[in-house]
Amino acid sequence: MLPYKSLIQLDRDSSIALYIQICNNFITLITKGILQPADILPSSRILADLIEVNRNTIKLAYEELISQGWAESIERKGVFALSNLPIRSTNKMDHELEKFKSDESFIWNKPPEISGERAHFKKLNLTIDGGFPDVRMTPVDLLMREYRSISRKFYGKDFLKYGNPKGSERLRIILSSYLANTRGLVVNPENILITKGSQMGIFLSAQLLLNPLDHVAVGVSNYNAADETFQYRGANLVRIPIDEYGMDVDYLEDVLREKNIKAVYIVPHHHFPTTVTMIMERRLKLLNLAKEYRFAIIEDDYDFDFHYNNKPYLPLASIDHHHNVIYIGSITKTFAPALRIGFLISSQPFVEAATALRHMVDRQGDSLLEEAFSALFENGEMERHYRKSLKVYKTRRDLFCELLQKNFNGVIDFKIPEGGLAVWSVFDKNIDLKKMSENALSNGLNVEDGSFYKNEVFNVNGIRMGFASLNEAEIQQALDILKKSL
Amino acid sequence: MLPYKSLIQLDRDSSIALYIQICNNFITLITKGILQPADILPSSRILADLIEVNRNTIKLAYEELISQGWAESIERKGVFALSNLPIRSTNKMDHELEKFKSDESFIWNKPPEISGERAHFKKLNLTIDGGFPDVRMTPVDLLMREYRSISRKFYGKDFLKYGNPKGSERLRIILSSYLANTRGLVVNPENILITKGSQMGIFLSAQLLLNPLDHVAVGVSNYNAADETFQYRGANLVRIPIDEYGMDVDYLEDVLREKNIKAVYIVPHHHFPTTVTMIMERRLKLLNLAKEYRFAIIEDDYDFDFHYNNKPYLPLASIDHHHNVIYIGSITKTFAPALRIGFLISSQPFVEAATALRHMVDRQGDSLLEEAFSALFENGEMERHYRKSLKVYKTRRDLFCELLQKNFNGVIDFKIPEGGLAVWSVFDKNIDLKKMSENALSNGLNVEDGSFYKNEVFNVNGIRMGFASLNEAEIQQALDILKKSL
Repeated sequence: MLPYKSLIQLDRDSSIALYIQICNNFITLITKGILQPADILPSSRILADLIEVNRNTIKLAYEELISQGWAESIERKGVFALSNLPIRSTNKMDHELEKFKSDESFIWNKPPEISGERAHFKKLNLTIDGGFPDVRMTPVDLLMREYRSISRKFYGKDFLKYGNPKGSERLRIILSSYLANTRGLVVNPENILITKGSQMGIFLSAQLLLNPLDHVAVGVSNYNAADETFQYRGANLVRIPIDEYGMDVDYLEDVLREKNIKAVYIVPHHHFPTTVTMIMERRLKLLNLAKEYRFAIIEDDYDFDFHYNNKPYLPLASIDHHHNVIYIGSITKTFAPALRIGFLISSQPFVEAATALRHMVDRQGDSLLEEAFSALFENGEMERHYRKSLKVYKTRRDLFCELLQKNFNGVIDFKIPEGGLAVWSVFDKNIDLKKMSENALSNGLNVEDGSFYKNEVFNVNGIRMGFASLNEAEIQQALDILKKSL
Repeated sequence: MLPYKSLIQLDRDSSIALYIQICNNFITLITKGILQPADILPSSRILADLIEVNRNTIKLAYEELISQGWAESIERKGVFALSNLPIRSTNKMDHELEKFKSDESFIWNKPPEISGERAHFKKLNLTIDGGFPDVRMTPVDLLMREYRSISRKFYGKDFLKYGNPKGSERLRIILSSYLANTRGLVVNPENILITKGSQMGIFLSAQLLLNPLDHVAVGVSNYNAADETFQYRGANLVRIPIDEYGMDVDYLEDVLREKNIKAVYIVPHHHFPTTVTMIMERRLKLLNLAKEYRFAIIEDDYDFDFHYNNKPYLPLASIDHHHNVIYIGSITKTFAPALRIGFLISSQPFVEAATALRHMVDRQGDSLLEEAFSALFENGEMERHYRKSLKVYKTRRDLFCELLQKNFNGVIDFKIPEGGLAVWSVFDKNIDLKKMSENALSNGLNVEDGSFYKNEVFNVNGIRMGFASLNEAEIQQALDILKKSL
């Protein structure tokens, strides 16, 4: 008989039932060839004594083994390992195990690692993020109220069944009027795909528009998650300069004469990371170029809702664009990053294609959340929340910039952002941002080290400093620590 | 000043007076927001030179604009766009919508259209689906309770901020012990990626494992959404026969000697659509083949929770598999299709890669839902729900099969499924399923026409008939109608 006392390892503190543990131990012995086909298993009484468990536990384990097709019980003889299992020799197995212990036995495509933004952040009370909303202001109680009323209202709980991969029709209808009112974007619900935040809009567009080795135009500085998504698709990035008026469309025009560009990705309002707004003349010229050279414009307008001075510019999608614009927006960014709702808007054929792809990616969105957001739009709560946030964030922006002016003169170069939730802060070249970030951390403040904003050509010594998620006292405190950490 | 020379388009051969054309051009500029409220219009002299028309024509156009209420003339200052703009007229909207209707001016990759399952279904009380849970049994009130307590509990609402793209750590910890207890699958939380249902697991695996023209082995009959996902990736499907013991691994072995297979997709428990369970010998042989030929096994075990006779077989992932298995599971399928939670389990390096890709696809899952599900697992509600459903579904399965036996003898050929939520029903070859489905529809019953299950080689005259989502009275009623509709 095998040395079961040593072979069978039990963890009596484990949440796994003992009889399952014993059963799994036998499966291992069988699959490793230590227990050979047609070998007899020890009687329940003997094994019970050996490994000091109740005899009924052994019986349960054997029943489990038999029901799973590993062993068979033969009348008046006992329990045997199944005779028609493929045989393996022990030493060969051990050899194989060694071989596969470390690395994989099949090969796959490695995507780029998740980029470093906030990767080093610790759980601290104080964080200068890259420009996120203050979730403490999120009216989550109102969301809960809608959840409750939905879960009561829907007879037969239809909202829990498979839904439309394009997203809740109710939400698409309310969005179409919301978009018309806020940004003159007149589309019907069929032109809207509800996504999980703007990132999914970027991913779907990249998959549909680009093929390996295609060219996509992006800013010299650009949202690096978008760059990575295009590169993962195998496309080549063509970097276009960005100045204080947005993307340099004349430069782009020169490129277009040389190269076939399949798509242009822009955040016209406001450019990431430098927060500049693209002026109307350039928007119009870009639209004309798209028409002439037949490329798609991916307009990422995640930042639209936050604009402090004059009215925001209308999106390119609101101007006559000959179906060249794919408009991507986000509710997530305004409401709460963890509640993933965004939208992709384009001509109906493109939206249908994006929907079919989305159906392959994750089938559909979260119907419950989509219904709840519909209600929040319908009863005006969403707009109230936007207005309130905007007011609060403007105050925070002004204080934040005032303190930068006063206490970081000559150290940080910045412009007061017209909109968005962050100040693009360019530090004196003698300041080592990595070191500063480490110092800040040891002083109890999370702040980025700028690596997230750099790429192969863009190497400015700057970071986005988010002012929205900090209240006024926290802004004071954070910038005091930052000063100490220079 | 705006680039009016390019903005204002005139057709000098048109029957419409030039001054009207100019007026309409300005109206378009205003309604599109290119000309902002209170913006000044160019002086008649300047504009006359720019667009080469008589100055009086411009004056007439401005008078027309003013009389139509689009602009106002201010003494000794000039003509200004009205500061409070009139509402868009309906025909204007229609014109706007036009631009989204016709064809694109850029090209994109068309994914396959969403496959026809339930595409033709109407809103009826009675539906024989392909095998979905009964959402009327979903304890949505308990989910709501957890939502409320979470939204109260978390100080600072951290759960609303950006979270871990791998999914809630709390959920991954509880899942790891849940999986050990239910299926002897011993993994640590780092081996688990929380996905949005099993489809996302299939999509991520396809992207990572396959490159265009690679070969992936699937069943002769197979879950067609998986086939499409592999084909969308550009991979070639190699069809392997399925018999009553699951995939024919000997046939697969012959193929492996000829072809390089990157991955094998199986639903061992239970095969889609025919519901057969893969026997242990074949599971072990498949694992040996994977080791020898270094391919990945994508084990889609979405159906694990529903097993009526003996305990379910252990997944391949629970057997010593040298990191060759990518295990995909679903909570969604058991709890409610619209609440998208599933998991992908593999070696840590592969899970890290899948997480990085997921981060590109949609950034992260729904933290709120993940926290709520964690609580439901922790307080045992999830298991209570599973047990209760299993009991109810077994009764429904038995009744459903009994009625098939009694009333469809010689018409429908089927085996009582050991598990899952559907009966694979092969109809007499003389029965036209499309016609039957139409008849049923006119009799008030949704039932599939079988097209979803067919592919280029699999053409059996059968459908999956789901028994789980119908109570006993509804089963009676549905099968009566079905009989009438033959």
